[in-house]
Formats: sequence, structure tokens, C-alpha cells
Amino acid sequence: MPPTIGGEGRFTLPGEAGREDETLALAEKWGADVIRDSDGTHLSPRILAGPYEIYSTLCLVRADQDFARAHPEFLQQKYLISDRCTAGGDGGPLTVDLLAGWFRQQFAIDFDHDPKRWWEIIDRTTGDVLQPREWSFDAGSGTATIEAPRPWHVYTVSFLVRQIWDPVSMYNHLTNAWTRDHVMAVDPRHPEVRRHLLEYLDRWLAEHPHTDVVRLTTLFYNFTFNFGPDARKRYVDWTGYSDCVSPGALEQFAEEYGYRLRPEHLVDEGLFNYPSRVPTDEYLDWMEFTQRFVTDFGRQVVQRIHAAGKKAIMFFCDHWIGTEPFGEYFSRMELDGLANPVDWGSQARRIALAGRRAGGITTEIRLYPYFFPVDLGGSPVFRHGGNPVRDSIRDWMKVRRAVLRDPVDRIGYGGYLSLTLDHGDFLDHVADLAEEFRDIHRHAAGTMPACAPFRVAVLNAWGELRSWITEEWRGGGLAEALSGLPLEVDFINFDDVRSLRAGEGVGVVINTGGAGTAWSGGRHWTDPAVVSAVRRFVAEGGGFLGVGEPTAAPHGGRFFQLADVLGVERETGHTTNWTRPAAAAPERHFILADQPGRLDLGPAADRVYPADAATEILAGDADNVLAAAHGFGRGRAVYLAGFTASPANTRLLLRALLWAASREDALHNWFATNIHTELAAFPGAGWACVINNSPAEQTTTVHADAARSLELTLPPHGCRWIEIGQFPNG
Amino acid sequence: MPPTIGGEGRFTLPGEAGREDETLALAEKWGADVIRDSDGTHLSPRILAGPYEIYSTLCLVRADQDFARAHPEFLQQKYLISDRCTAGGDGGPLTVDLLAGWFRQQFAIDFDHDPKRWWEIIDRTTGDVLQPREWSFDAGSGTATIEAPRPWHVYTVSFLVRQIWDPVSMYNHLTNAWTRDHVMAVDPRHPEVRRHLLEYLDRWLAEHPHTDVVRLTTLFYNFTFNFGPDARKRYVDWTGYSDCVSPGALEQFAEEYGYRLRPEHLVDEGLFNYPSRVPTDEYLDWMEFTQRFVTDFGRQVVQRIHAAGKKAIMFFCDHWIGTEPFGEYFSRMELDGLANPVDWGSQARRIALAGRRAGGITTEIRLYPYFFPVDLGGSPVFRHGGNPVRDSIRDWMKVRRAVLRDPVDRIGYGGYLSLTLDHGDFLDHVADLAEEFRDIHRHAAGTMPACAPFRVAVLNAWGELRSWITEEWRGGGLAEALSGLPLEVDFINFDDVRSLRAGEGVGVVINTGGAGTAWSGGRHWTDPAVVSAVRRFVAEGGGFLGVGEPTAAPHGGRFFQLADVLGVERETGHTTNWTRPAAAAPERHFILADQPGRLDLGPAADRVYPADAATEILAGDADNVLAAAHGFGRGRAVYLAGFTASPANTRLLLRALLWAASREDALHNWFATNIHTELAAFPGAGWACVINNSPAEQTTTVHADAARSLELTLPPHGCRWIEIGQFPNG
Repeated sequence: MPPTIGGEGRFTLPGEAGREDETLALAEKWGADVIRDSDGTHLSPRILAGPYEIYSTLCLVRADQDFARAHPEFLQQKYLISDRCTAGGDGGPLTVDLLAGWFRQQFAIDFDHDPKRWWEIIDRTTGDVLQPREWSFDAGSGTATIEAPRPWHVYTVSFLVRQIWDPVSMYNHLTNAWTRDHVMAVDPRHPEVRRHLLEYLDRWLAEHPHTDVVRLTTLFYNFTFNFGPDARKRYVDWTGYSDCVSPGALEQFAEEYGYRLRPEHLVDEGLFNYPSRVPTDEYLDWMEFTQRFVTDFGRQVVQRIHAAGKKAIMFFCDHWIGTEPFGEYFSRMELDGLANPVDWGSQARRIALAGRRAGGITTEIRLYPYFFPVDLGGSPVFRHGGNPVRDSIRDWMKVRRAVLRDPVDRIGYGGYLSLTLDHGDFLDHVADLAEEFRDIHRHAAGTMPACAPFRVAVLNAWGELRSWITEEWRGGGLAEALSGLPLEVDFINFDDVRSLRAGEGVGVVINTGGAGTAWSGGRHWTDPAVVSAVRRFVAEGGGFLGVGEPTAAPHGGRFFQLADVLGVERETGHTTNWTRPAAAAPERHFILADQPGRLDLGPAADRVYPADAATEILAGDADNVLAAAHGFGRGRAVYLAGFTASPANTRLLLRALLWAASREDALHNWFATNIHTELAAFPGAGWACVINNSPAEQTTTVHADAARSLELTLPPHGCRWIEIGQFPNG
Repeated sequence: MPPTIGGEGRFTLPGEAGREDETLALAEKWGADVIRDSDGTHLSPRILAGPYEIYSTLCLVRADQDFARAHPEFLQQKYLISDRCTAGGDGGPLTVDLLAGWFRQQFAIDFDHDPKRWWEIIDRTTGDVLQPREWSFDAGSGTATIEAPRPWHVYTVSFLVRQIWDPVSMYNHLTNAWTRDHVMAVDPRHPEVRRHLLEYLDRWLAEHPHTDVVRLTTLFYNFTFNFGPDARKRYVDWTGYSDCVSPGALEQFAEEYGYRLRPEHLVDEGLFNYPSRVPTDEYLDWMEFTQRFVTDFGRQVVQRIHAAGKKAIMFFCDHWIGTEPFGEYFSRMELDGLANPVDWGSQARRIALAGRRAGGITTEIRLYPYFFPVDLGGSPVFRHGGNPVRDSIRDWMKVRRAVLRDPVDRIGYGGYLSLTLDHGDFLDHVADLAEEFRDIHRHAAGTMPACAPFRVAVLNAWGELRSWITEEWRGGGLAEALSGLPLEVDFINFDDVRSLRAGEGVGVVINTGGAGTAWSGGRHWTDPAVVSAVRRFVAEGGGFLGVGEPTAAPHGGRFFQLADVLGVERETGHTTNWTRPAAAAPERHFILADQPGRLDLGPAADRVYPADAATEILAGDADNVLAAAHGFGRGRAVYLAGFTASPANTRLLLRALLWAASREDALHNWFATNIHTELAAFPGAGWACVINNSPAEQTTTVHADAARSLELTLPPHGCRWIEIGQFPNG
């Protein structure tokens, strides 16, 4: 079944005016069916007139710079926090230079909205909020002054700014040393702005007859991307809801929710509700409030695009605040598709899942490298010293295995096409990669691959809302390893877990992360209903996999609250004087069977020790357990002190999950023995795909089940489709 | 000045009946002036009649076993906690086998004092204490039953036991496979017991005319030493106050302090107020209450010993509860001396300081190896496979440097002298060691060595009460390194620090330990008065040295509360998305000058990063700082991510303290350049001592000051005294 956008080419090419010949030649070579523009490029009539569907990038909030310049009162706003300032010992006034830690070309302090009403100065030493009469501000110098600070206390100022430079545009500008004017974004919370943007949109639609698909980049509010005084990234949060704050929005929030948000609810001690923070109720309200607004206005935008006979896709990055694809409001926008930059398998799984949740809309992954001279980390790609083929293979090896588990519809690239032209090896490589991608769809034929006979549920404070995001936005070893395993994966939160029962689909609950983070769960683990529910689940036959500091919260004499389930506990300095239980350390275990050497789990929690003599230490020793297995009731638990994605660890994970679920018997169903190889079988379509994730030739035995197998050899990074009928009868 | 106990021999020999010839020959060879008995040995008339002062060991509470056996109601008591028991899902009764985790030969459950009144059953999942009607107990089976536990909640029972085997005696018994009856200890809280013990003492004194010194081992209540069901150590706390608990004591406490202690105040979530726990007010009250009782009755004991014309020393181990040498009640016992087992320099400093604090009473360190077949860890010493000379040198290298900084009066040994007789090399070695020790006193002539021109204050939640104890009772690398450095060291608590001012003697405050422990300080760091006081101290010119997780407590957006002083902060997962300040990493620094290679600080806090661009990273990198230096006001701070005692780290510490105190100029005052050597100068006596702490020959330059130096070579483990007049004029 072809996607609703594009055709069998499944490939989106970034076109470039002035490079018409090359654009059209590469479209042919790479099998493109869609041509798009990018930030900084545009398409010429000759390209637009070709046989390709045309994506046109549109970022409404920064589309009309004249309007933005004429209305500084409509610029987007946010709260910043000043540097932490320590008062001296003399009791004299403490003057805080508010923007000392920030990039003055990005932010302008908002003195128009009364600082005494909208700002907050907090004594971080006591937690007290200062009374307005205790401080003053000076618009000329951009400072606030605490008249009589308490000696040696630390103070911060939370203050409103206007964003006078759109952050992603700023990033592109600085990265490419552009000289054009600084781009600014307006805030559609203002009715005047919404009216203007819709008028602009209507005009734009009329002026773009060749555009088939409007590629919204993204919607209205950018992820948090704050630069420091050195004009370089200082703070970034790809999932933050800080850039949609304004006095108007806060007033509206108070009206709808019946309470006022304080600046502190958004500034969060200067930690800005980073996704590792266990989200507060207030912040979750703020997210929901924002989602409703964004998707409401987003729907109006999409409706007008549809009315103009065009389709609408959303580029799932940049201005994506409020467009949570797993939130309850997303699908009402009725988008036709989603596109997402992807260099990790977990991201590919996220976008594939999002498309399905939104009703089966088209999903497209924009692959790296982006056609820029340097990458996001500043390393050379399409300039001297770069190696775009190496970079692409590195990413594709991560992404391919995930796409085989949940195929996205399309791939594409972005940036300056002209930069690629000197890299003939890259041009050939992309042609091969595109064909490999299309081959997946040809063989899978719209079916889904075979999976283990149980689902896996990743438990954290975010749950489904942040599906496929674990420790960090980019990757997190565990989600990455999972993304290519034959497993259906749910993401659940601490409300969901309360009703979880064994035998109802979920076979193993995973909890991974550092103590006190949203990923591990922090204070949720002190909730009796939570620990009881997980104990019940495991005791009744379920499995539990804890990684790092699972279930961690100092409470009731325990640090790992489910030490009784996991069979391990972590030393925090208070039990050094207890003799450790004499746990066994078996030399062989189902979980360890394919390990080529000593476990290397990467940075691991230290000082984990057995909490029970029945614990089996699989790696490490009684003072530093690296891996352990433990029974609890009719169920089982596995502990890993850390996890990084590697072939050996990915196999370890698969085996750990099968063992925890008491389904070791299912290992050989559609399985490739060599840890550098994986098998994805599409029984409904009669095909199976074996991939070699390594840069070396690999020989592997592929199993249809325990009885039926084939041996084969794959070239480096190779991929081979096998007709399922070729497997011998068992 | 000779000590008040013993003479110029300064050596206490453990005699052994049946080995009279050998005892007397070794007394001659080792220069002993005192002969003692040990647990398991006694002295015969021929030894007693010799020219030696006689120490006789007496442990009153376990001296009269007939009395203990006749009065089980007087046995010592304590609270134990049951294993943590997880209730099942059916809501059925949960029966807890109270002693399942403990050694049934050590403890008998006390059902005589009404369990419903004296026990506590706690739902550790909620923290709720169960009502007495919610549970029952059964004396026959030694169980308690919770009638209707909440499904999947975890329960513990805190219950009273009688100690039916004195723990140190039990340890000696099991270690040496004795077959004698189990020794039990009685509790002098009972007036009948006190009366009986004093009568026994009077009789004993009359029956021991040859005894010159009564060596009390120790007083009345043993440190916590609980065995598990495998008859091996399960939990030990050398400083715990759990073994002096009884209903009578608790009633008396309630009367004196006006509130009742709950079992939980003593059981402490099963963590038993281990010294790493930040002590609660209730526990500190309990310690004070116990100290008053112990020293009151201890004074009565000492007075009777004095009345009998004998002296009294206390062996500072075993039954030492309540005899805190730095508490306010200790000196009123009017002991004549203190003895302490010592295998670390920090312990030698502790006992030397204790003797001074108690008015200059005699201090004696009992060296290791103890004359037992195996050591405390079970490794062979005086049996096949052991090497007592190697063990002794290992310890003496740690102890000698500390004794040079604060000379204790005497040394000695304990155990079965007969075990040493086959080890001729050990007999010669001890003769040399004893002479080396006496040489210190001959040269120092009662004077103290020269020190740096400022004091160092170690700040933790215990302060002076636990002087020279840091991370663990035994050692703690930092205290160990400090013990031999030319520094006067104070131990201060979070009350003391409030009034600390720069320029009044203390040059550097040290804070070292893991987050949340009493050593680092835990909740004390959220006290505004504490952080303000330390900031003031440093800003006004003081120094601060933080090691590991200093000032750590998550509060107000910070983990290291004094990140502004230290210049570093630790990542707890919430600031991974911040670009680290661009701190400098100088190649040379005063602190690093003598480092022979890369810093090896041992297990270190990870993910420490610069909090300020002005921080200097001395080792590690911006994501994992190992050592850093930072200015704050007129003062300076140094951070070390870990610390283990080694020659290189000891030098690092000295330099870090001098730099933090802004007294780099003082480095060369009485200084040996080679890191394996140290110099202790006694200017008042005209002598300086150079020691070689290493097993290799070392050449070193010894400085009287920056201008005057000598070069010399020392044999392995060597020690040389130099007349100060031999230094050239500057």
C-alpha cells in the first residue's frame, strides 16, 4: 500500500534553485518522487514544473518578518532565570545583571509587563520569594537589585523576555555565517497574530500553485534553545514547554484551570522542567493547556491547507511544542503526514508509532547527514575532513533495524544539495540506501513483522506521552537496543502501572534511569499503590527488568524500593557494615549465553549488592553487581547496572526480557544467532530479512523456529531477503 | 617525661601462663615494662612476681558468669529488626520469624516485657505503625503475625531481645573454636547488678594483689556486633549505642528527657543509626543519656580501684558505649590511662588526642597483629600462610608517621604469646619497632612537633565527638593521610561552623563524604546559617577543601550547595543539557607540583563539572572533574572527587591545604621533598626525624625552611634523627 503522500519512490529530495540540472539528475538517481525546499534554499520554476510532488516548507510564525518587526509586542516570550548570585557579607544591595548568562542578540528583557507582577526573585538558600518592595529593577541597565539581601544567601531572578531571534533560524544563521536579518517569530496567542497568520496562509497558498504538500516547520513554538553570551548553545531541551509562555497565556491558563502558575512552575529552580525532572502537576497542566491551544489553531491551519487542495505534513522538530503525537489532542489536527529528523532507531520507532496513532498518516524520516558543511556537533561533514558516507552508514545501521520492526513510509534529506555533488561515493551510497529502504516495503507488503509472544512496557514518569524517549532525547541505549528487537513496546506511566496485571499482554516491565529522574521515577516509587502493583504483577508471573537505579527513592530504609523483587539494593553509605547475602554466581545462565566476553554495560551504577541470598549474580561481585537475576513469586526480575547499545548488550537485553517473561522457549522463533546479525520476519508476506549491522562479513544461522534454520553469510552492512518457504521443514 | 603508667620501656607484653620462660625472655628482648593478660590467657605467679608492672584485664559485666546465669532478667538487651517481609496478594496473615536473619545462639526474644507495649510493627511501604490489635505474637515459635496486612506492602518488626552471648567473647570463641560455656554480660542499669558488680570488684581487687593496673575491657556495653544465622558477622557498628537499650533504661530516659523514645528511634529503618546516618536529635539525646549513666557508674568503679591502691586504664574498644572520649562526661571517670587497638594512623591520633583531652592521662596503642592464628578478616597470621612481619610493617608505616605528629605514651600487644615463638623474624622485628618507638620519646622529650601556621577543621555532623573518624571507623583515606601531616586538626560539627571566622586559627575547612551521610552532612547543608557561615569564612580569606560529595543536598536547584564556593557541581541527571562553563585546565599548579603521574584518587564521585568559568580543572575534564581549584572572595576552595591514602595523594592533600589557606609559602618549613618520605621536627627539643614510608631505599632533600636543606638517603622503611643544628644556615 503506497503512502497517502508521495508514491513508490518513497524519497524526498531537497531541491536547490540554480542547481536545476543536478537536482533533477539526483532525483532520478535516488528514485525521488518528492522534491522539497529547505531553510535557506528555494525551488525554481523548472523544478516545480517537473513530474515530482512538491513539498514547500512553511513556518507561519516566522514567515512574515515585516509583521514581526512592526509588532514587537507580538514576539514570542518566555521566562529566563538569571545567574545564581551570592550576596556578600556587608548586607549591601545585590545587583543582578539579568542577561549576564544569556545571548543578548537572542533575548530582550520585557519591562513592559510590570516586573513586580510577572517576575519572581527567590532566595534559593531559604526558598523564600522576595516581596516586590524588597527589590527594584532598571530597564536601562537590564538589572534587578535586591535592596537588603541576607548575607551570603544565593538569589535568582526569574524574568520575562521577548525572543528577538528565532532560535533554530539563529542556529542556522550562525552555523552558516549568514548575513541576512535576524528572523523573529510571533506568538499566535494574540488574536491579532492568529488573524494575520491565517490571512498570510491564504495568500501563501494562493501564491504556491505548484505546492502539493505544505511542510509545516513545525507549528508555532520552538523547542527550548538558549544561547549563552559566547553566541553558542548554553541550554537545550527538545521537549520543553518554555517558549510558549506569555502574560496572555498565563492569564488564560488561570481562567481555564482556576489557579495561577508562578514563574517558578516554569523556571523550576533553574532546571526548566527538563524531561529528566519528575513532572509536577502544574507543569503537566501547562503542557495540556498548550497542547489544546496549539492543536486548535493547528487544525485551523490544516483546514485551510486542505481547502486549497493541498496536503499538510508536520516536520516534527523545531516548533513542535504542543504537538505531542501521543497526547490526546494531536489527531484532531488531521494532518496528512509527519516528518522527523532521525539518526537513531528509537526515533524511527517513535515516528512510526506516531503515524499509526494519528490514524495511519504518512510518516517520513529525514535522514542525516543534513546537507550542511558541519553537523550539529560542529564536526565537518560536507567539507574538508568530513566523511558523509561513514556518517550515513553509522546512522543507517541504527535506523534500518528499527524500520524493519515498524516501517515508516518514506525517507528524505534536507539542506543544500549542491554540497553533496563533490562526494560521488555519497551519491552512490544514497542510491543504494534508498533502494534498500524501498525493498523493505516491497517485501513487507504492508504487513508487520513477527514479535515475541508478549509485550514489553517501559515504565517512567512520562509514559506514553514520551514514547521511545528514555534517558535522553537522542538515544538512550536501552530504547535504542529495543528499537530493533522483535518486541512490541509500550511506554507506561505510574498511573498506568497501577492496573497492570500479569497474563494480559505485557510480559515484562522495564524501569531504567538515574535515581530521582523521571525515567527511574523518583518520588513515584514512594507511592504504596505503585510498588504494590509492580509486586503483584511480578508475583503473578510477570517480569521486571531494572537498569541503573530502578525504583530508586530513599524511603523506609531502602534505596531500591523493589529490592525484594530485584534481589539487589544499592549502597548509599548507610549499609556498608552489613555482610552481603551469600548470593550465587552461576557461570552459565540463559541470559549470558551469547556473550562474547566480559559484560561492558558502559557507565554503571556502582555499589549495588545482593539483597537476598537467592539472587544470582550474573556479572560483577557481591559489592558491585553488574547483572543479576532473581525470582519473586511466580515471576522473575533481572537487574543490569547500566546499558549501552552494542551488539552484545542488545542480545543480552533480548535474552533478559525472554527470561524475565519466563519465555526462554521463544528465543529461536525468527532468530539470527550471530550477535552482529538480526532477523525480521514478515510471515504474512512470506519474507524474512537478515541484516548484518557490522562493518565485517558475518556468517549466521537464521532460525524460523528451534527446529528450522539456515546458515548464511552476509557482506559488511549487508541485508538479505529470504523467502520463508526456503526454511527446511522442522 | 615518663607516662604515669609504666616506665621508660613503654611496652606492654601479653604474658601467658605455662610459657613463663618465653614470656620473661621476650619481655627482656622487647624492653617491656608491663605484662598483661588477655581474653583466654592468664598470668602465672612466676610472671606476677617479676619486676614488671602488671595489667590485669577485667570486664566487670561478664566477669561473674554464675551471677549472669542465675539472673537472666539482668542480661543485656537491645532492639533487633526482623527481616523485611513482603505481604502476599491474598490479604492473608503474614507471619514473621523474628530471628530468621539473626544468630539464635546470640539472642533470645524478650516476651517478658509486653511486646504490645515495647515492640513496633511498621508498614515500611507507608511508614505507618500498626496498632497493637492488628498483630499478635507467639512466644513458642518466636514469631509475630500481622492479621490483615495490606497486599504487597513490606513489614518489619522491631522487637526486644536479651543477649545470651556476649558478642566479642562470642567472636573470640568462634574464631578460636573454644569449647567453654558461652559468656553472657549483665546490665548495670539494674541497681541489683550495680551493687553486685561493685561487690565483685572489691573482692577481685583484694584477690589481685599483684595487679598494678586494672585494664577495664572496656566498661559495660559492647559495640554492636550482631551475627547472622550462619554464625558469622552480619552487622557491626563500632560506635553504635544499641546494646545499652532496655525497658528500664527507656523508662528512665522518658523521665529525664520528658519524652519517650520509640523503638524506631533506635532501629532507624533497620539502619540502626549507623555513624554514616546524620544523627537525629533523639539519638543524640540517647547517646548523652547513656554517657551520663556509664561515666557515673564508671567513676564509682575507678574510685574503688584507686582506693585499692591500683591504677585504672580503659581498653577503648569492645564495651566502650558511653565512654566517648570527646564527650563532656568522659573525664569525670578520672581514669589513669587509655589503651586502644591501632592499625591506622588516624586511630593513633584519636587516642593521643583523647588522652590529652582527659587531662594528659597515659595513652597506649595495642598494635596489630593480635597474637591469634588469623586476623579479623580471617586471613592467616600466626599460622601457615601468614606473615606477621609483613603485616606489622604495613601497619607500622601508617602508625609511625601519626605517632611522630602526636606521640602516644606506650605500645603493646595482645593475645597468645606462644603463637609468636616460631616466628623468629617477628621477634626481632618487634624489638626494633619498640626501640624506634622509644626513640621518638627520647628525642621529642615531651615537646610537640612543628606544624603549619594554621589549623585544619574537618566538618561533619558528628564533629569533635567523633574526632579522627571519617568515612569509616577504620581509616577513611583522608583522615589517614592527615594523621601524619604537619597540621593541627580539629573536628567540628554544624553548630561549631556557624561561628567560624577566617583569621582566627582555622585556615581550611574540610568536608568529605558521600551525599546524605553524616560525613558530608546531608540535611545540614540546607540550613541557611550553615552555608552562609562557610561562605563568609571562605570569602574572608579562609580555605575550603571538598572531597567526594561535599555540601551535597538537593535543594534550590543545586546538588552541591556550595557550588559557588567550590566552583564545581555534580550532575544528577537534570543538567545534562547545559553546556559546561569553559573552565581552564592549567598544566601546572602548586597543588599538583609533586605528582609523579596521573592522579589516582580511588573510587571518585563521577559527573562532576565546573560550575564557573573561573574554576581551574587540575585533573579530569569538564564532564568528570577529578580535582579543581577555585577562588571565592578573598579565600580559596579545592575540590577532589575522591581520596585514598597514598604517598602521592598525601602530598596532594598537603599542597591543597596550603594552597586553600593561601599559605603556599609555608610548604618548605620542615619538609621532605620525596613523597615517600616525611619530616617531623621538634624544634623545642632540637631534633627532627625523617622517615621513609616505602619498602625501597629513598633519597630525599629535607628542608628546615626554603633556604636550608640537607640531602640524605634512607633504607627501606627507615627512620633517621637529625640534630636541627646540622642544617646549614640560610
